[in-house]
Amino acid sequence: MSDKILSISRRTRATPFTRRVEAAGVKGYTVYNHMLLPTFFESNEADYWSLCEDVQVWDVSCERQIEILGPDSERLIQLMTPRDISQAVIGQGMYAPLCDENGGLVNDPVLIKFAHDDWWVSIADSDVRLWARGLALGYGLDVRVREADIWPLAVQGPKAETLVTRVFGDEVPGIRFFRSKMLAFRGKKVMVMRSGYSKQGGFEIYLNDPALAEPLWDELFAQGQDLGVRPGGPNLIERIESGLLSYGNDMNHHHNPFECGLDAFIDLDADIESISLPALRRIAGNHRHQLMGLVFDEPMQIDDFSITADGVEVGDIRSQVWSPRHRRHLMMAMMKRDYLSVHKSVVVNGTIGRIVDLPFDFATI
Amino acid sequence: MSDKILSISRRTRATPFTRRVEAAGVKGYTVYNHMLLPTFFESNEADYWSLCEDVQVWDVSCERQIEILGPDSERLIQLMTPRDISQAVIGQGMYAPLCDENGGLVNDPVLIKFAHDDWWVSIADSDVRLWARGLALGYGLDVRVREADIWPLAVQGPKAETLVTRVFGDEVPGIRFFRSKMLAFRGKKVMVMRSGYSKQGGFEIYLNDPALAEPLWDELFAQGQDLGVRPGGPNLIERIESGLLSYGNDMNHHHNPFECGLDAFIDLDADIESISLPALRRIAGNHRHQLMGLVFDEPMQIDDFSITADGVEVGDIRSQVWSPRHRRHLMMAMMKRDYLSVHKSVVVNGTIGRIVDLPFDFATI
Repeated sequence: MSDKILSISRRTRATPFTRRVEAAGVKGYTVYNHMLLPTFFESNEADYWSLCEDVQVWDVSCERQIEILGPDSERLIQLMTPRDISQAVIGQGMYAPLCDENGGLVNDPVLIKFAHDDWWVSIADSDVRLWARGLALGYGLDVRVREADIWPLAVQGPKAETLVTRVFGDEVPGIRFFRSKMLAFRGKKVMVMRSGYSKQGGFEIYLNDPALAEPLWDELFAQGQDLGVRPGGPNLIERIESGLLSYGNDMNHHHNPFECGLDAFIDLDADIESISLPALRRIAGNHRHQLMGLVFDEPMQIDDFSITADGVEVGDIRSQVWSPRHRRHLMMAMMKRDYLSVHKSVVVNGTIGRIVDLPFDFATI
Repeated sequence: MSDKILSISRRTRATPFTRRVEAAGVKGYTVYNHMLLPTFFESNEADYWSLCEDVQVWDVSCERQIEILGPDSERLIQLMTPRDISQAVIGQGMYAPLCDENGGLVNDPVLIKFAHDDWWVSIADSDVRLWARGLALGYGLDVRVREADIWPLAVQGPKAETLVTRVFGDEVPGIRFFRSKMLAFRGKKVMVMRSGYSKQGGFEIYLNDPALAEPLWDELFAQGQDLGVRPGGPNLIERIESGLLSYGNDMNHHHNPFECGLDAFIDLDADIESISLPALRRIAGNHRHQLMGLVFDEPMQIDDFSITADGVEVGDIRSQVWSPRHRRHLMMAMMKRDYLSVHKSVVVNGTIGRIVDLPFDFATI
C-alpha cells in the first residue's frame, strides 16, 4: 500500500458529494476523468466485506456523462463503437467498447439512450469528449458534444434494492438490469438505473442537480442505518474477484477488444458505419494477447509487472489483489497467446500460478 | 494540506524514473495525463527555497509527447491552434493554446517542430491524442498520431545550467530559450531544450530510452552534489508567484484564451486554416471573464472558491497559495469583467484583497 499523499487542486475536481465524502472519513482517492474518486474509507478489506454483506454509497461522479445531442447523435455514437446500437431502447444502458480506426480501445463506457437524439456516454477514464468533438467536426456532423452536469451516485450491495426503494419508492424493484426509470427525489426527477461497478447488485442515481447532492447522501444514510449502510467506492478486491475490467488498468488504447474478451460486444457482421469495424474484422482471431486470470495460493509481492519465461516476456500483470474470501492471490494479466497455446501455468517471483479464464470461476480454482 | 492517500494502480502510470523518485523520498503525487507527477519531497515551502536557490531534478514524464507524423502533420497542428505556426524552426518550442470550434481551450501545450513532418505536442492535462485522432480521421488527413515513448526530465533552478552543462557538455549554455539541441548521453542523442515550468531557469531533457532513465537521474545527482541538487516537481508557490498558468486549474475548456490573457498567442489576422479562429474573431474583446491576480496581506483559509459581492457571484478562485518570500496570500481568480470595470478590490472570507494584473508585479504590490 502506497502512503503517498494526493495533492488536491481545482484540476483534480471535487464533486457535489465531496464534502460528505470527507466528513465520512475518506482515506484514499484516485483521480479519474480529472475528478476525485474515493477508493477506501476503512481499508480495502473492511470496505470489501461491507460491500458484500450490506450496502454502500459511492461517489462515482467521475463517471462523467458525455452527452451527444442532435440529429446526428446516433450516427456519431455508432461511428465510435463496433457494437450495433440500432436496437437500443430509450432509458437502456449498453456496455460498449469504443474503438479507434486501428481497433484500439478508446474507452469502455456504458452508452445510455436518453432520448432519440440524446445519448449519454458514461465514460471510463479517458477524454471521450475530445475524440467525439474531433470526429463530429471532421465528419461535419450535426451534434452538440458536452460533458453534462450530471454526477452519478452508486448504491451497491445486497441491501441496495431495499435502500433505494425506501428513498425512491416502489417502482425501484421493477427496474431490470441496465434499465432505468425517472424517479423523483425532493420533487426532481432523476434517472435511476440498475447498474454499477460491482457484482453485488445495486443502482446508479444520475443526479442532475448539485443542490440535491448532500440531501440525497444524507437521506440514503438516514434510511440505511439499520441496513449497515457505509460509504465506499469501487473496491479493488471485489472488482477483481468479479472479473470487472478497468480501462487504463487492465487494458488501454494499445489493446483491442478481442484481447480483453469483449468479443460479445462487437457486431462484426452488422451493416453499420463504425470507424473500427474494418480493422476489427481483420484482427478477429489473429490477436496476439489475451487478458487472463492468474491464481496463486499464497499472498504475492510484485516487484515487476513483466512476466517472463526462459528470458522472454510472455505477459504483463495489469491488476492484482489478495482475495480474503477465497484465500488466493488473483491477477489479471495480458498474456501472449503463443504462450497460452502450450502452457497452463506461469511463474511469478518464483511462485507457480495457474492460468484461468476470466471471470474467475471459484468453484474450479 | 490534504492527508488523503493516492491509490496507485497501473492506470495512474509509473514512469521510468519512478523507482528513483520513490527512493528519493517523494511524499506527494498528483495524477497528470494518467501518470504520476511528484508534487513535493520535503514540503512545498522547503522545496520552493531549494528550487529558487539551487537546482532541482523533476520527473515530468507526464508531459506526454503527442507525436504527429506525416505529410499533413503541420496542417493538423495548425487546425488545432490559433497561433500561426508557419514560421516555426526545427528544434523550436512554441507555447500555443489549442482551441476548439467555440474557442474553448483544449490544452495549452508547447509545440515542438522536431522535423518538417514530425511535430511533438508537449501537452498539459487532457487527452489531446484523442482530439487529434478524431480530427485527423474526420478530415481525412495523412498523419499518424501517437503518444511517443518520451519521458521529459526537467532540471530547474539557478544552478541548472551548470549542472546540465556538466552532464551534456559545452553546447548547453548556447541553447536559447525554447530552443533545443540534440546532445549525447551515454552515446544516445536526446533533445535538450531550455524550458520548464518555473521561472528559475533550466532545461528539459526529452529522454527517449527508458533504460537511460536511472543512469541519467543518478548522473545528475552525482554531478550536482556540490550544487545542492534536490528532487522536486512543479512547485505551487513558485508557479503562482511567477504567474505560470495551469490547465485544469486556472482555466479549462469552458474558458477561451482571451479570458486567460493569452492574446499574444492568437494570430487573429493570419491567413491560416484553424478550427477556432472564426469563433475567436467573434469573441475578441467581448469575452466576459478575465483571469486576475488577487493579493491579501495575511494567510487565508478558503472554504469556498466562489467570490460574491452583494450576493452575486463575481469570481471563481482557481489557484491560491501563501508566498513565504513576499508575505502575501496570492490567488488567481477568473473574475467577471463587469465587476473589474468598476472595482479594484474584492472581499474573500471577510478580508479585502487587491485585484492586480498577472503575472504579479511584486515591486508594486
